[in-house]
Amino acid sequence: MLKKDTYAQRPPMGWNSWDCYGAAVNEEQLLGNAEYIRDNLKDFGWEYVVCDIQWYEPKAVSNFYNNFTELCMDEYSRLIPAENRFPSSANGVGFRAIADKIHAMGLKFGIHIMRGIPRQAVHRNTPLKGTDRTARQIAQGFSLCLWNTDMYGVNSRAEGAQEYYNSLFELYASWGVDFVKVDDIANTEFKPHDPYSAREEIEMIRKAIDCCGREMVLSLSPGPAVISEAFHLSQNANMWRMTGDFWDHWDKLFNMFERCEKWAPHVKEGCWPDCDMLPLGKISKNCSCLGDRDRYTNFTPDEQKTMLTLWSVFRSPLILGGELRENRPEDLEVITNRDIIEINQYSSDNRQLFRSRNEAAWYCKDKNGNDVIALFNLSDEEKEISVDLRHYGFEKKYEGINLWTKEKTEGIEGTLTAKINAHAPLILRLIEG
Amino acid sequence: MLKKDTYAQRPPMGWNSWDCYGAAVNEEQLLGNAEYIRDNLKDFGWEYVVCDIQWYEPKAVSNFYNNFTELCMDEYSRLIPAENRFPSSANGVGFRAIADKIHAMGLKFGIHIMRGIPRQAVHRNTPLKGTDRTARQIAQGFSLCLWNTDMYGVNSRAEGAQEYYNSLFELYASWGVDFVKVDDIANTEFKPHDPYSAREEIEMIRKAIDCCGREMVLSLSPGPAVISEAFHLSQNANMWRMTGDFWDHWDKLFNMFERCEKWAPHVKEGCWPDCDMLPLGKISKNCSCLGDRDRYTNFTPDEQKTMLTLWSVFRSPLILGGELRENRPEDLEVITNRDIIEINQYSSDNRQLFRSRNEAAWYCKDKNGNDVIALFNLSDEEKEISVDLRHYGFEKKYEGINLWTKEKTEGIEGTLTAKINAHAPLILRLIEG
Amino acid sequence: MLKKDTYAQRPPMGWNSWDCYGAAVNEEQLLGNAEYIRDNLKDFGWEYVVCDIQWYEPKAVSNFYNNFTELCMDEYSRLIPAENRFPSSANGVGFRAIADKIHAMGLKFGIHIMRGIPRQAVHRNTPLKGTDRTARQIAQGFSLCLWNTDMYGVNSRAEGAQEYYNSLFELYASWGVDFVKVDDIANTEFKPHDPYSAREEIEMIRKAIDCCGREMVLSLSPGPAVISEAFHLSQNANMWRMTGDFWDHWDKLFNMFERCEKWAPHVKEGCWPDCDMLPLGKISKNCSCLGDRDRYTNFTPDEQKTMLTLWSVFRSPLILGGELRENRPEDLEVITNRDIIEINQYSSDNRQLFRSRNEAAWYCKDKNGNDVIALFNLSDEEKEISVDLRHYGFEKKYEGINLWTKEKTEGIEGTLTAKINAHAPLILRLIEG
Amino acid sequence: MLKKDTYAQRPPMGWNSWDCYGAAVNEEQLLGNAEYIRDNLKDFGWEYVVCDIQWYEPKAVSNFYNNFTELCMDEYSRLIPAENRFPSSANGVGFRAIADKIHAMGLKFGIHIMRGIPRQAVHRNTPLKGTDRTARQIAQGFSLCLWNTDMYGVNSRAEGAQEYYNSLFELYASWGVDFVKVDDIANTEFKPHDPYSAREEIEMIRKAIDCCGREMVLSLSPGPAVISEAFHLSQNANMWRMTGDFWDHWDKLFNMFERCEKWAPHVKEGCWPDCDMLPLGKISKNCSCLGDRDRYTNFTPDEQKTMLTLWSVFRSPLILGGELRENRPEDLEVITNRDIIEINQYSSDNRQLFRSRNEAAWYCKDKNGNDVIALFNLSDEEKEISVDLRHYGFEKKYEGINLWTKEKTEGIEGTLTAKINAHAPLILRLIEG
Repeated sequence: MLKKDTYAQRPPMGWNSWDCYGAAVNEEQLLGNAEYIRDNLKDFGWEYVVCDIQWYEPKAVSNFYNNFTELCMDEYSRLIPAENRFPSSANGVGFRAIADKIHAMGLKFGIHIMRGIPRQAVHRNTPLKGTDRTARQIAQGFSLCLWNTDMYGVNSRAEGAQEYYNSLFELYASWGVDFVKVDDIANTEFKPHDPYSAREEIEMIRKAIDCCGREMVLSLSPGPAVISEAFHLSQNANMWRMTGDFWDHWDKLFNMFERCEKWAPHVKEGCWPDCDMLPLGKISKNCSCLGDRDRYTNFTPDEQKTMLTLWSVFRSPLILGGELRENRPEDLEVITNRDIIEINQYSSDNRQLFRSRNEAAWYCKDKNGNDVIALFNLSDEEKEISVDLRHYGFEKKYEGINLWTKEKTEGIEGTLTAKINAHAPLILRLIEG
Repeated sequence: MLKKDTYAQRPPMGWNSWDCYGAAVNEEQLLGNAEYIRDNLKDFGWEYVVCDIQWYEPKAVSNFYNNFTELCMDEYSRLIPAENRFPSSANGVGFRAIADKIHAMGLKFGIHIMRGIPRQAVHRNTPLKGTDRTARQIAQGFSLCLWNTDMYGVNSRAEGAQEYYNSLFELYASWGVDFVKVDDIANTEFKPHDPYSAREEIEMIRKAIDCCGREMVLSLSPGPAVISEAFHLSQNANMWRMTGDFWDHWDKLFNMFERCEKWAPHVKEGCWPDCDMLPLGKISKNCSCLGDRDRYTNFTPDEQKTMLTLWSVFRSPLILGGELRENRPEDLEVITNRDIIEINQYSSDNRQLFRSRNEAAWYCKDKNGNDVIALFNLSDEEKEISVDLRHYGFEKKYEGINLWTKEKTEGIEGTLTAKINAHAPLILRLIEG
Repeated sequence: MLKKDTYAQRPPMGWNSWDCYGAAVNEEQLLGNAEYIRDNLKDFGWEYVVCDIQWYEPKAVSNFYNNFTELCMDEYSRLIPAENRFPSSANGVGFRAIADKIHAMGLKFGIHIMRGIPRQAVHRNTPLKGTDRTARQIAQGFSLCLWNTDMYGVNSRAEGAQEYYNSLFELYASWGVDFVKVDDIANTEFKPHDPYSAREEIEMIRKAIDCCGREMVLSLSPGPAVISEAFHLSQNANMWRMTGDFWDHWDKLFNMFERCEKWAPHVKEGCWPDCDMLPLGKISKNCSCLGDRDRYTNFTPDEQKTMLTLWSVFRSPLILGGELRENRPEDLEVITNRDIIEINQYSSDNRQLFRSRNEAAWYCKDKNGNDVIALFNLSDEEKEISVDLRHYGFEKKYEGINLWTKEKTEGIEGTLTAKINAHAPLILRLIEG
Repeated sequence: MLKKDTYAQRPPMGWNSWDCYGAAVNEEQLLGNAEYIRDNLKDFGWEYVVCDIQWYEPKAVSNFYNNFTELCMDEYSRLIPAENRFPSSANGVGFRAIADKIHAMGLKFGIHIMRGIPRQAVHRNTPLKGTDRTARQIAQGFSLCLWNTDMYGVNSRAEGAQEYYNSLFELYASWGVDFVKVDDIANTEFKPHDPYSAREEIEMIRKAIDCCGREMVLSLSPGPAVISEAFHLSQNANMWRMTGDFWDHWDKLFNMFERCEKWAPHVKEGCWPDCDMLPLGKISKNCSCLGDRDRYTNFTPDEQKTMLTLWSVFRSPLILGGELRENRPEDLEVITNRDIIEINQYSSDNRQLFRSRNEAAWYCKDKNGNDVIALFNLSDEEKEISVDLRHYGFEKKYEGINLWTKEKTEGIEGTLTAKINAHAPLILRLIEG
């Protein structure tokens, strides 16, 4: 097993600031959500607290970016937290103080970065740490992000390029970072013919983490990651996005079933294809982002369960996206179902049984080796769904336990048939006899 | 586990007539090779004897096809063996007599078919069995094979289509067929935008086998199969080709390494992505086919071992292609290495460690749970190749046993380094201590 | 000027049976429409009478094809008229008698053929004229039409291929054919990566016409023809389709504006990119074909004028599609506007001035060198449309004559502005002063 | 006729600094070549003197660019000549002094610009003229040039964008510029799916020229321009490149024949598809650029004549690329053939007759209405080439005058046949009788 795989032996679980605060999260919000996790969620396995994009941008106010705006940067061309948003970062402290507090809660701390080097560093031609080359000399003038103007890509063949990435992760290690989500890298949209064109930057980041002296989970965005590069991804990262940004719309959830079918053979310890954040509870607080501003998730309770069930039988990372402090009781309940979380963290032999326009079924073994079957009604109406158990080799008579309701059904044999709500799941643990 | 997966729990091993006899194999050659297997190879696991393409074509003489030629066909539009080539098939016996003889040798019998219905049946509008529809009514006039004029595709939505396929497999079951290689189906080249356009024909064939009353391994050709359809393939077939036709050229062997990297996550019981036949010994007896007529394989001894080692650590089916009766002692030796065959049949946790232009490395656990590492020198010169064992989690001290030469190397620790011939492999079983 | 260009010095004008009778037109209908043309249209320039697809198919009843059905064929693998539909063709007369009658009316006669050789000839392996090769030997087994099962393509490198095409046009010349519309040839949809894959068949047909001893206009279908092959088309054919089949739907007419923009530079004597038949009057008599069965055109009077105006300023061939004998007075009126027809036949310097989502403008010089401007309201509402005349170099003061209404407008200077109905045209001849 | 077309009624003829000096030409070189033209070439029609790319870059030394380097810019974000290279431009004079001198020679002055706004202006957020918007606000952060880091594209929907372009051309008009070559605009390689993505910037430039008060020929680079956008190009520009950069290699010249076939129907007054500069005489003085540094053209004398003949029968702009002051007698001779230049400037009815792998033929009428035929031997060996004159409608008996040698050939009738050197042309004026 690769050393990097030991950093994420089970799918990472945690919280990320994007779905609720976009590019504009601040210290109070970060720590407030961390405290909520400590008090309500840690016991169920949730542990990472991740500060998403543009923590170095003083004027950020929403999910949209200010083009060409001034970014906070240290003397080595490295971006640092905006003090007006993260007061404890002043005087060169960076994220160290926040990380310390999160660690003291028994949790882990993560940050988001963009691939590359700040364009402002390049046009000012500022120095780099550990090399006498300058920002201008390692930047790739045509390599950029289509949706954000902060960075240029780094030319892996330039002298000083690896030193630059090393200097970044040395800084993050000094802050106490446990998780890094790197963006504009798993699918570099500026090169439509070659969406995995940042493969050398991924390798430089892998090397930089390996020699930074601290374990950090490496998460790559955005999706869709390129499935033909699954081997390279699995050698270098711990998780990578399978799709574009996920939000609380049924069509996006519906489409995830196809993606999970394709990526399922690539799920393994330390390598977790990622269904993206869970847009649950209160989201989109700073602007209307694919829905109303400051809304509770558009997903119905049934859709929420479908999402959590799929993320679990597939074994996606589980990263919450809402402002946790505004959770209603039902919002908390859906993310604290120990049976579902256990499937996500400990199941094995996970695989899709079938999928069509209107239904899907998955199988896994739970922690104790019991068979688990999940049925999904993908249609827009209540529907009876059947599995021919014998076709899949289940020859015995079973009792089924519904992992969401805990209800029991006896005498399941030959065929499993259930009437299921539109967009709802049924996940059963099967016990022989 | 699907019932179909129980037909091929390990990678199928056997012999196929294409590489030596093309479209023109006859009864004597088929049975002669079967006898050779019985006498020399059965004990090592080789068991299937497969009659390749156009056994229904009386004028076939080589690997090339006669366009629009008359085919042997029964009253239900089903192709039957050409009596001039398979004398025992006369009087409606079909392949029954040959299958019986092969079964009596303790071996299994396979045939090749083309997807679809004979064009001659369609233009004569002959009857079908089990339906009052006729050949004309189930044919798809635009669905055809780019390289052979025998068949039209079958329209899965036509009444009578499933009955036609059922009638085929009913016939094959009556003959005693154990293995069916269906061609022009895994990659339907006539539809370049949709190479998996025969998906409904695959499903009809699956259903026809499931209800024919006999276990038959289902093999799909030609490659490259479409990797995004891996789920559908795994639900319907037992093996499928990963590439176009494989022959005894280094570039084709070299390219197989990339294909194996991509398909490795999809290898599992009952589902064997297929590296294609092994062009070993005497091949191409009827014409010059990518090399001299009637030649011994162009592969050097080192390349032969590279091929068998890759096919084994990847767990491809192993299907011999040469005229076995002309095997020289060295030809027999390379296919009767029990250690290599055991890796192919019983290894687990198989995966590539790394691959670059000049080298590759694979890992698996052998039958007894020992670590096995295979190194490949893909360059054209002798080369020292190293594996950083600790990077992959091998922290102990090992003794290595070379599975080809049986030589032992002691004191392997930290790094495994070996000087390897051009195009040659090194496969070592590692024993702790 | 190429000899072939002398056959069609102006855009061909005539009638074709497809829009009203599909594959099922008969002798009575053909001659009845010819008589209508003689009596009502000949004086305006309409002259070709073209019998569309499958006149060799005895069972044809509509616009849809019977798959793999028996076709009428002579002893040389050449298709001949079905006697039940064309009684005068019996006893080897073929289309000779019909052509004679049409010629006697002062009109010209055309037929439709499919590229290639009948599949039934190939599977029966029938003889060819002028060569000892047989049908089987010149057919290309993978080259076919996606929407009709009659033919295989002909392999231009096969001995006997040119002789086969020569024998076809020798036959057509003996019948007195003046116009041949060849189908499945300008865009061979079975090869999506190479839609002009029939280029060699086009060349064989060109040669066959050049040596058949009779002038025949060569029209190629279906569209869209490949614009990058404009040179080859112009060297070999007289007209070729710019789009897929055109019918009486506004979106198809709307889209023709873009096609005309692209093809305009390629319009020249003998070379007429073709906007397809005019679905006017009573159409679709044998089946519902993109609209009700036996309907009068869906085009409004304004849309009909837009169509005829565009076809004229662009200089497309003008081929009527309706059952002329059912024309109402207004149907006859719209196709007998001498000014519009004169623009089509004799204008010069034709070019688009501008085009946007909602409007378009074209320019040409009429027969006498007067400026003509056509404005089109492409939007769905009445709209004022302006042309900055000075921008295009019209510096004088003009009187405008509306070519549809004959109304005059004085004092046009600097800017031409007009309120135009939705989907309607305004075409003005500008006279200085 | 559009007003812009009156600026270039015949194909522009002149000189451009790129082929000899790359990005590093200076005042002395510019004026020195202008003087050469005045003294040796003006009388033959050569008139434009064009200063190519990066005259605003003080450190430019060759054909390669310094990434992210400091550019000379005025207070309105407009690039201005580097004083160290163009001393007369100091004190706000810009190119005015140079233009004045060139005008005084009876010649015209042109400059090259890159589409967009300087990245340095954007990152410094400098002001624009005529608007209170700033550089940052009109730049498109993802729109850039793949091969040069100077500029960002301008967002046509941003307020201030048109004002920015207006301010540029106002400046150029004040300098006395007669010709502008805009680069990174006809084919925007950063968008491979949409190479004409700068269409709105082209429209802004058109508008800016139309209102700048001075006639300027508009030339667009680089190629290949998108042929399906021929209409838009013809409405907005005077010339546009048909290919990537042209240099003195036979394969590039060979490929131009196909491009000329495709673009020929689009050649018309004011609209000149451009075969690119003529790499004749001494080129590549500052670096090895697709050949030796400081070399005389690699084209043989025959190839030079092929190039000039093709550029002339096609009517491409003629722009010399070499350091004219180093011309040898033969270099001057080849560009001062009055007959060839007259074909370029005044011929009509230009068209290709045929083209295959080994030969091509073109036709045009000369100024006096005489037929002119050009034959090209595209093969690598001497070859006899024939034209069937009657096939193309030349029915008379002719005397031919070779436009390069002035030799006469009598009695040309029916077929024109000539033995032609490898890579050489034969261009004949045909006189009846």
